[in-house]
Amino acid sequence: QNRGRLLISCPDQPGIVSAISTFLADNNANIMESNQYSTDPKEGTFFMRIEFECPDLPTKEEELKTQFSLIAQTFSMDWKLKSVYDVKRTAIFVSKELHCLRELLFEWQSGDIITEIPLVIGNHEHARQIVESFGIPFYYIPASKENRAEVEEKQLELLKEYNIDVIVLARYMQILTPNFVAAHPSEIINIHHSFLPAFIGANPHKRAHERGVKLIGATSHYVTNELDEGPIIEQDINRVDHRDDVKDLKKIGRSIERTVLARAVKWHLEDRVIVFENKTIVF
Amino acid sequence: QNRGRLLISCPDQPGIVSAISTFLADNNANIMESNQYSTDPKEGTFFMRIEFECPDLPTKEEELKTQFSLIAQTFSMDWKLKSVYDVKRTAIFVSKELHCLRELLFEWQSGDIITEIPLVIGNHEHARQIVESFGIPFYYIPASKENRAEVEEKQLELLKEYNIDVIVLARYMQILTPNFVAAHPSEIINIHHSFLPAFIGANPHKRAHERGVKLIGATSHYVTNELDEGPIIEQDINRVDHRDDVKDLKKIGRSIERTVLARAVKWHLEDRVIVFENKTIVF
Amino acid sequence: QNRGRLLISCPDQPGIVSAISTFLADNNANIMESNQYSTDPKEGTFFMRIEFECPDLPTKEEELKTQFSLIAQTFSMDWKLKSVYDVKRTAIFVSKELHCLRELLFEWQSGDIITEIPLVIGNHEHARQIVESFGIPFYYIPASKENRAEVEEKQLELLKEYNIDVIVLARYMQILTPNFVAAHPSEIINIHHSFLPAFIGANPHKRAHERGVKLIGATSHYVTNELDEGPIIEQDINRVDHRDDVKDLKKIGRSIERTVLARAVKWHLEDRVIVFENKTIVF
Amino acid sequence: QNRGRLLISCPDQPGIVSAISTFLADNNANIMESNQYSTDPKEGTFFMRIEFECPDLPTKEEELKTQFSLIAQTFSMDWKLKSVYDVKRTAIFVSKELHCLRELLFEWQSGDIITEIPLVIGNHEHARQIVESFGIPFYYIPASKENRAEVEEKQLELLKEYNIDVIVLARYMQILTPNFVAAHPSEIINIHHSFLPAFIGANPHKRAHERGVKLIGATSHYVTNELDEGPIIEQDINRVDHRDDVKDLKKIGRSIERTVLARAVKWHLEDRVIVFENKTIVF
Repeated sequence: QNRGRLLISCPDQPGIVSAISTFLADNNANIMESNQYSTDPKEGTFFMRIEFECPDLPTKEEELKTQFSLIAQTFSMDWKLKSVYDVKRTAIFVSKELHCLRELLFEWQSGDIITEIPLVIGNHEHARQIVESFGIPFYYIPASKENRAEVEEKQLELLKEYNIDVIVLARYMQILTPNFVAAHPSEIINIHHSFLPAFIGANPHKRAHERGVKLIGATSHYVTNELDEGPIIEQDINRVDHRDDVKDLKKIGRSIERTVLARAVKWHLEDRVIVFENKTIVF
Repeated sequence: QNRGRLLISCPDQPGIVSAISTFLADNNANIMESNQYSTDPKEGTFFMRIEFECPDLPTKEEELKTQFSLIAQTFSMDWKLKSVYDVKRTAIFVSKELHCLRELLFEWQSGDIITEIPLVIGNHEHARQIVESFGIPFYYIPASKENRAEVEEKQLELLKEYNIDVIVLARYMQILTPNFVAAHPSEIINIHHSFLPAFIGANPHKRAHERGVKLIGATSHYVTNELDEGPIIEQDINRVDHRDDVKDLKKIGRSIERTVLARAVKWHLEDRVIVFENKTIVF
Repeated sequence: QNRGRLLISCPDQPGIVSAISTFLADNNANIMESNQYSTDPKEGTFFMRIEFECPDLPTKEEELKTQFSLIAQTFSMDWKLKSVYDVKRTAIFVSKELHCLRELLFEWQSGDIITEIPLVIGNHEHARQIVESFGIPFYYIPASKENRAEVEEKQLELLKEYNIDVIVLARYMQILTPNFVAAHPSEIINIHHSFLPAFIGANPHKRAHERGVKLIGATSHYVTNELDEGPIIEQDINRVDHRDDVKDLKKIGRSIERTVLARAVKWHLEDRVIVFENKTIVF
Repeated sequence: QNRGRLLISCPDQPGIVSAISTFLADNNANIMESNQYSTDPKEGTFFMRIEFECPDLPTKEEELKTQFSLIAQTFSMDWKLKSVYDVKRTAIFVSKELHCLRELLFEWQSGDIITEIPLVIGNHEHARQIVESFGIPFYYIPASKENRAEVEEKQLELLKEYNIDVIVLARYMQILTPNFVAAHPSEIINIHHSFLPAFIGANPHKRAHERGVKLIGATSHYVTNELDEGPIIEQDINRVDHRDDVKDLKKIGRSIERTVLARAVKWHLEDRVIVFENKTIVF
């Protein structure tokens, strides 16, 4: 209950860490985990993530924020101070393939992913049964190239209604419009079924098979308006060989996809991922 | 001394394995290791690699070949029957960076790579000392875009003179002409410092850094006339993160490159790699 | 429908492969995948696994068996010839922790594990809901050290009634008696939550933490009467570091356990695992 | 030239980071990398490693130390402040097998391991040639169980004469006496050719083969008086299968050993490894 998180980015200069840690010490907060990174100590950008324990955090939170805003001003900081127990609210978008959805639901059920999941939206009915068996409302909104505008309108309404912080595209297979993406910057996480930037776009396993690669991978990234070009959060690979046909590659791919996506979502929910330019810093 | 290797490719049909194994059994040869693969049992191509022990192989080798050619004819086989002790002869091409050369020399010295290395050719002098310390002749042939034709003429002469079977480009950094490649089909092994087909071409680590990938890799492939597009023999990757700058990626890359190249060369020398279309079968 | 599997072990000698492949060729069977291994070509044991396609296999199966028994006699073979579509029947035993059960059910549902699962037996009720949601009967049989004999009697009856071929202990946490093990030799697959033979027995994660290891693992093995000493089928590891406490190690361990167990079960169901002495050959 | 390193351990309490970072900021030092860990924020031990850049570090180093000793006193710190350019001096001990020695020499030559290597000591002559080819003095001191005392006396003298900070046992194969170990606490790095704590002691590959494991590993650890029980710095594994005999396991093992040892040595030289109780914290 007394665990908090402080997230900061600002122009790098000497004295930042000193100011922050003095602030925490003055408030009897004990640092539990601390990560920092500077793109360049001369004229770069400085990033920091601190987890701390502070006695009576719930009652002191507002006061801490007021105090810290003065420090933040001095160093021109972008910052967030929050209680760890104030968990994010996640919506999952899904289509026909359920392996990523399942992995997320199980990790969530077993407590390895900590979030609230107020709804799942599918453009097919395939996921309804499993979603509802977890006691989560499932919304079926058929989507295709043709009705993108109205579909996204409905979706955005639901996201607003349910007060959603994070959208996970668990093999959703639909392209989002700039309008939708702009409404949730760095809050939409996708899983791409290849090791980006190889085999960008459709049918990566077929193309990987044709090229005769010896490893296949998957990439989880934030969604931007450039297809498959958003900041990469996590990637991983598996070994394949000449015996594996396209169907085998897909099967092996599914196993990597669900692992990589679950890891990326977990890190995002723990505020470990910071977007900078078109890359991520993962603390 | 009695260990032999039989390599076969032919149109697939029932009866091939039976004919081969009956031939071996009739000659008292014992199968030590056997691998087979068919691209498609219906109308595909069948590949097989057998290691066997046959009493008095050295004296019986020619007779076995004569016998086997009859079977080969029946099934329209491409084939090779050879003694394992008839090792391949390898030339290493190198430039300024020595990590791949070193790895090969050490694996060779420790007996993990079995070949003869009659010469190393460099387009800079950097490698001379280490090569000569292993008692191997070093040829310095300055090469650049301008003198490619005469340089390759000299190189081809040396390869002929030394009776070379395999050419390993251990970070040689020069493009070979179609003429040179044609003289050694599926016998030139290159190491590309990226996880192909991502970041084909120059400066992959710089581009990987810009893209913010979380894994970098290396690819060993046979050289064809399409730059970096030849059949892939082996690939591997290492994890990187936001802290790694381009220099770090190169350092990490060097470690993968030497491992991947050494593995590919070892498999090639043991006749485990078969090129089919633009892919490899690795037994 | 025409896919078959031939499994063989016998004393090694020249001519085995020839006899088998001639038999298959004579019956117009096309070899799809073939693996062989000999512990020692001189006086060792020879193992082979062949997948083949044979026209009209369902109608010819009995005839093939009759024919093959003659070859088998000549070479003193242990053998099995079966249709691939004759799938094994699996019972899963479970206790309170469900991650391994879940993984198996999902791999099964998605078609990556091919078997029938006629029942799940739990010594607690924790698994009932998920098991029944898959339409599988769940049997609750409370088990402890005290009532082992009667519990196993009930279990063995159920296994007989449901005609079970494979028993998977998905974190079942109870020790089986020699009586039970003897009834299902090389048919009981366990997942041990450590990288055997390190940390045999209880509390491996606590002991791993105390020892300060940098990798933790899991091991899937056949159950024998020697606790945790049965033939190993598969192992894998994950990286950990000083920040991970015992709880973290368990969490990371769960992820390896479910992966390793699912792989071992899959290989067993495909008849890829052969027990020889106290080891496995995995084709 | 202005890069420094500050290493700290002390009882955890609020205010430590604040004091340190204020001290650095006051001296215009810019933090380049910072790592911290607390065994328990309540009554635990706090560890920190900071790399910083400080203008005119060479001339200001003594003054900084004087200043910092006051802070250190307040918090009861164990601490070290040093210039990065003040590199450690390493002695390598070797026997007949050279793969670990070679890896260290090459990583050193290529600049990936930064240290001085004033001497190599061997209890056989095998390493002389390669060591001297790098321009490093080689001392041949035959060692066995019988002459341990006098051998170690000679060795300790050499280590003193050459002012050695780190001793790397690169497959040295001799047991050191408590006397020797006590002279270099947490400064002797060994490579054990198994994945500790499995197969402690001799012949791990033979025993691994008998047990039928599917992965083999290597462990680098600090030497203490308990054989193979010292704090683990790094471990890694490779996959093996039923085809690999004891000789193959050794070959595969050599490849892991040299990688793991090189990594451990590199981290130690960069002051990234802190021993706490019988474990390591690796920053």
